[in-house]
Amino acid sequence: MARASAGRSTLSRQLQLLDAFSIDSPFLSLSELSRRSGLPVGTTHALLADLEEQRLVERGADRTYRLGIRLWELACRTPGALGLREIAMPHLQEVHGSIGQHVQLGILSGGDVLFLERLSSRDAVVNATIIGGRLPLHASAAGLVLMADADAATRDEVLAGPLRSLTDATIADAAELRRVLHRVRTQRFAVADGYIHPSARGIAVPVTGAAGETVASVGAVVPNDDAPWIPLVDSLQSAAEHISAALRAAALPQAHPEASPGGRYRALVSSSDESMQYLAGPANRRQPHSPAGATPR
Amino acid sequence: MARASAGRSTLSRQLQLLDAFSIDSPFLSLSELSRRSGLPVGTTHALLADLEEQRLVERGADRTYRLGIRLWELACRTPGALGLREIAMPHLQEVHGSIGQHVQLGILSGGDVLFLERLSSRDAVVNATIIGGRLPLHASAAGLVLMADADAATRDEVLAGPLRSLTDATIADAAELRRVLHRVRTQRFAVADGYIHPSARGIAVPVTGAAGETVASVGAVVPNDDAPWIPLVDSLQSAAEHISAALRAAALPQAHPEASPGGRYRALVSSSDESMQYLAGPANRRQPHSPAGATPR
Repeated sequence: MARASAGRSTLSRQLQLLDAFSIDSPFLSLSELSRRSGLPVGTTHALLADLEEQRLVERGADRTYRLGIRLWELACRTPGALGLREIAMPHLQEVHGSIGQHVQLGILSGGDVLFLERLSSRDAVVNATIIGGRLPLHASAAGLVLMADADAATRDEVLAGPLRSLTDATIADAAELRRVLHRVRTQRFAVADGYIHPSARGIAVPVTGAAGETVASVGAVVPNDDAPWIPLVDSLQSAAEHISAALRAAALPQAHPEASPGGRYRALVSSSDESMQYLAGPANRRQPHSPAGATPR
Repeated sequence: MARASAGRSTLSRQLQLLDAFSIDSPFLSLSELSRRSGLPVGTTHALLADLEEQRLVERGADRTYRLGIRLWELACRTPGALGLREIAMPHLQEVHGSIGQHVQLGILSGGDVLFLERLSSRDAVVNATIIGGRLPLHASAAGLVLMADADAATRDEVLAGPLRSLTDATIADAAELRRVLHRVRTQRFAVADGYIHPSARGIAVPVTGAAGETVASVGAVVPNDDAPWIPLVDSLQSAAEHISAALRAAALPQAHPEASPGGRYRALVSSSDESMQYLAGPANRRQPHSPAGATPR
């Protein structure tokens, strides 16, 4: 199948270009894109023309390229990322409102924690988490929670090291990490004092999916001081229970007595009860949203 | 350039498959994808294999496909979507905290309002907005604000109709729409009573970018009742001023005395001051994030 294999190689080279953009370099010129991707300038230019035509990249007034809004629109239909984030959001907001520090939602992805959401305030403590960013499993409270409940292969791979130290407090010893994971699995929470930065304490608890499996962690980053942190574990566990219940309700068939309103929308959208009924109901047939893919220029 | 043109057609067909997923159909089988995209089952299968290998789609335990987390990770590096949303978020949260109803952030995109964020609460009024969803310009407060400041071509295209009515209150007459836009441009806010649903009132104000141009709107959806809405316009305008100031600060060179900390991260990330210094500072060189594109399986 020549066509499919040509397509495969083109798509993977186009993704090399998209991957060249990062949080600290969101704007790139043609020559920077060529250098970062390792592709010749001419090839880069041709691939970019195609990506720009499809609105996966956009060109600014200064001729630099950036990732396009269309990617973000597609991302809004990913149940594993934005769906989970939408369902968790009201509960994250409640914890954030009561503590004023960072509150975050992470999932296990490719041997890291990938953060789907993080609420902050300007005067909150130092925190390395960014939305769409990753942290190592062994060096973060969210990571310990996800690793404690992960399959044996994922755990063994991390335990085989290297266990990179970010501060003197990071767990860098496999035997100690194994003990800590056992404790986390039993206690259902993790506390990481200064693992990433001496002045920050991470606390995280697991969120379970429809089948009771751990699907995410909810955590907070607070100052690494003498303040009692047990009340914070309690409010994170309460938020996690609410999120887990909402995930179970979202997976129920619409006819089930405990199903929340919204039908299939519930996999991606969390709005007020009246809005969910509107979105799922007969009004939806004359709904003002453009249908999938109808993204006029 | 045969290769580039083969790539173009492959990419556009792959996007046909990605576009088949929508908010009300986030999970699709092979045959549904073939039917929705109009592509033969064999072609659909080959394109999906490539998309799955690149983690742009994922396959669930029930064999259905869904859009993949990798799309969402790329989306987190779009300055025009997530960057703007990150900068606006603390100010949206403040308004949401004080009114408890829907608060939302929208941009002009392809002749619609595209919503980047929406905060809700369970008992809030009915609202058709979903994150990543669109509303017609003429039928929403956010749309009126964006249309009032849009270029003449965009305005004329909408004014040329058709102006679809969603309720009896939707503006369906071009002359009336022109008068309303003039008023919105002068007053710097729009109020839409029952345009989309009889029980909902939309209110929106403009957000300006570094050059003073309108880049987004901040709005609220509240019950369409006798409660005075002027105080809400005031708090939305205050939030919009803060967001506009933050956008200006994010565009300043790092050496500028009024530049906020964070360097190039500021285009995409809004965290606490200490976190922004950490992300941009020397500590960043041993930063725990995976580099761009390093998304191990």
